[in-house]
Amino acid sequence: MPGPFITFLTDFGLQDDFVGTCHGVIRRIAPAAQIIDVTHGIPPGAVLQGALVLANTLPYMPVGVHLAVIDPGVGGARRPLALRDGEGRVYVGPDNGLLVPAAERNGGIAAVHELANPAYALPSVSRTFHGRDLFAPAAAHLALGVDLAELGPPVDPDALVRLDLPEPEVGPQRIRATILYVDAFGNVQLNLTREHLEAVGAAPGTRVELELGGERYYAVTARTFSDARAGDIILYEDAYRNIALAINRGSAAKMFTVAPGGEVAISLD
Amino acid sequence: MPGPFITFLTDFGLQDDFVGTCHGVIRRIAPAAQIIDVTHGIPPGAVLQGALVLANTLPYMPVGVHLAVIDPGVGGARRPLALRDGEGRVYVGPDNGLLVPAAERNGGIAAVHELANPAYALPSVSRTFHGRDLFAPAAAHLALGVDLAELGPPVDPDALVRLDLPEPEVGPQRIRATILYVDAFGNVQLNLTREHLEAVGAAPGTRVELELGGERYYAVTARTFSDARAGDIILYEDAYRNIALAINRGSAAKMFTVAPGGEVAISLD
Amino acid sequence: MPGPFITFLTDFGLQDDFVGTCHGVIRRIAPAAQIIDVTHGIPPGAVLQGALVLANTLPYMPVGVHLAVIDPGVGGARRPLALRDGEGRVYVGPDNGLLVPAAERNGGIAAVHELANPAYALPSVSRTFHGRDLFAPAAAHLALGVDLAELGPPVDPDALVRLDLPEPEVGPQRIRATILYVDAFGNVQLNLTREHLEAVGAAPGTRVELELGGERYYAVTARTFSDARAGDIILYEDAYRNIALAINRGSAAKMFTVAPGGEVAISLD
Repeated sequence: MPGPFITFLTDFGLQDDFVGTCHGVIRRIAPAAQIIDVTHGIPPGAVLQGALVLANTLPYMPVGVHLAVIDPGVGGARRPLALRDGEGRVYVGPDNGLLVPAAERNGGIAAVHELANPAYALPSVSRTFHGRDLFAPAAAHLALGVDLAELGPPVDPDALVRLDLPEPEVGPQRIRATILYVDAFGNVQLNLTREHLEAVGAAPGTRVELELGGERYYAVTARTFSDARAGDIILYEDAYRNIALAINRGSAAKMFTVAPGGEVAISLD
Repeated sequence: MPGPFITFLTDFGLQDDFVGTCHGVIRRIAPAAQIIDVTHGIPPGAVLQGALVLANTLPYMPVGVHLAVIDPGVGGARRPLALRDGEGRVYVGPDNGLLVPAAERNGGIAAVHELANPAYALPSVSRTFHGRDLFAPAAAHLALGVDLAELGPPVDPDALVRLDLPEPEVGPQRIRATILYVDAFGNVQLNLTREHLEAVGAAPGTRVELELGGERYYAVTARTFSDARAGDIILYEDAYRNIALAINRGSAAKMFTVAPGGEVAISLD
Repeated sequence: MPGPFITFLTDFGLQDDFVGTCHGVIRRIAPAAQIIDVTHGIPPGAVLQGALVLANTLPYMPVGVHLAVIDPGVGGARRPLALRDGEGRVYVGPDNGLLVPAAERNGGIAAVHELANPAYALPSVSRTFHGRDLFAPAAAHLALGVDLAELGPPVDPDALVRLDLPEPEVGPQRIRATILYVDAFGNVQLNLTREHLEAVGAAPGTRVELELGGERYYAVTARTFSDARAGDIILYEDAYRNIALAINRGSAAKMFTVAPGGEVAISLD
């Protein structure tokens, strides 16, 4: 049997050695562990985007230990955590909301412990790189079968930091949505599902008006890119079942000025 | 024995979770599979560049399943394929020409099947992410030993989409070449071999004139960078036996305006 | 037991296939080898930066074969090497100083051999990609247990190329430091330790004056980012025990014009 799986998601990027060093730390402790790098391209400090990507991708990952580090509060008062969801998956990361949406979609939070036992950290813990010194070692020990309760005292799940997930405003013929994520192809993920569009009568093939950054555009709801012509602005259900805004064979991110947290209004034409 | 090898080449980039999610899908199905990421940095939608990189790098890869996804037609009519070459390598990817040059250089195309059997795809196949839902699962099942014919009906190899590979024009003292690829060091790969240069009398050490973007430059044919001075424009045989244009200790891509498909004329001085 | 470990550090970047191709070469020779990518984001040709990252990260890596390729002199007279340190780690890379600081911090250089035996290289060695043709195969064979002396003739350790590591100038109330490295978060690593700052009386919490690119700024020495306010310029001990310059919740690299080799003067206010 192949060794235990550890999935790994951060905002570290791949230019520096941060990700590679954590791999080294994990494999020194758990040589047989198999690490799957979910992504290290979350924008620096973007806890909400990281939490959404972790929750969206988790169903596609082998069950194992799920290590996630987006940690702008490193070295401060935020607690380092390990938690277990109702389906037996184990998560390691900071108490800033990053782990909660994934665990809540997978059976809820069954147990939480603070990482406080120095036996499961590196001998010297720096103030700025807990990914290497605290979180990676904890994930490796958990992958070896160490019990969650060994890592430190229990924490009340209700006491965990939680993120505000933006909710859309759905009116009779108009929706105000929030941008969640912009991918490298320039597609813009919104906090909408197909049901929201259908609630205002925008079935696939409907022409709609977009308002975005003070400008207005026409767009069309489409099932897939091949339903639209090159250059068309489309709203489609993306692979994680969110509605996304795209330019067919182009980049919506280059055409519009968009960033996570920005607003988009959609009206029936 | 280590698990079966799956090599993986895409235009997904590493900023998003697309590559990591496919790794997860593969390892859920084939936990012992060993994935080698050839590159995920092919420019978005650049099928020809991807096909050339796949063909160039294949001889350096362990025999296994070779998964390649550059798929601007996802969700449309193009067929998803698995094929086997004359040397027993198996390929998975879209029917847009991406897989053909590699297979043809490795014994030719021995068998092709369309990916049509839902038993070897994820339960729900999205319209925009066949890498995750269709191609990665097929590659994983093939790595486990599933027979190609199980995946779907056979396809006539002659019916596959093929790419036009640009051919150089070689005159008595002048060559018109096409840019195939520009690497991250700024080196510019041309559709030429050493034999083309020798046909016009440009042995190593010859001074030649380049015409590129309406401007003329002097260059020298060189065996290696250390044969030239810093700042020299050189034509050399690169590690895949293509002639490439470079600036010694500099970036030809920064000095010239170059992109795949662009033209370069080379004349004897 | 999991297969032998090979750590891998280069300036190849991840856009092209260079790293993936070396992985393929290694796994063809040593299928069970486990490769840890330390980083491939060292700036092109930056041997000193690569040497420092290799030395800093090595203590976090499993003992194994440590392959490092930053090789602006490829194809010229520089020797390809394999060496062993006093603690039994084995290194493979070019004789340009890249491997020396890591080996010297880990028990010194116990043995050096030139890579000269063609039995441990690919059958055809290109002039421009020794990473693929020479260094990766040597690392793979060493990981399989081939003796260092099999790879080629011994080299006198004292004859190896060594890098000049810049030393700071520490005066009574003023330090002149050199920038070693700028990371992707924009933090600027200096050639200073906490002891240097303490020697001029700059304990944590001290206000200091920086001189950098002809401009003056106030900064504060801090234990961690959470000790400072957003936007503060801080000097802190980074995770590798170097003093680094940062903007709390910002990017020092964007605010200042900085590059490795640049100078920073620090004065007590």
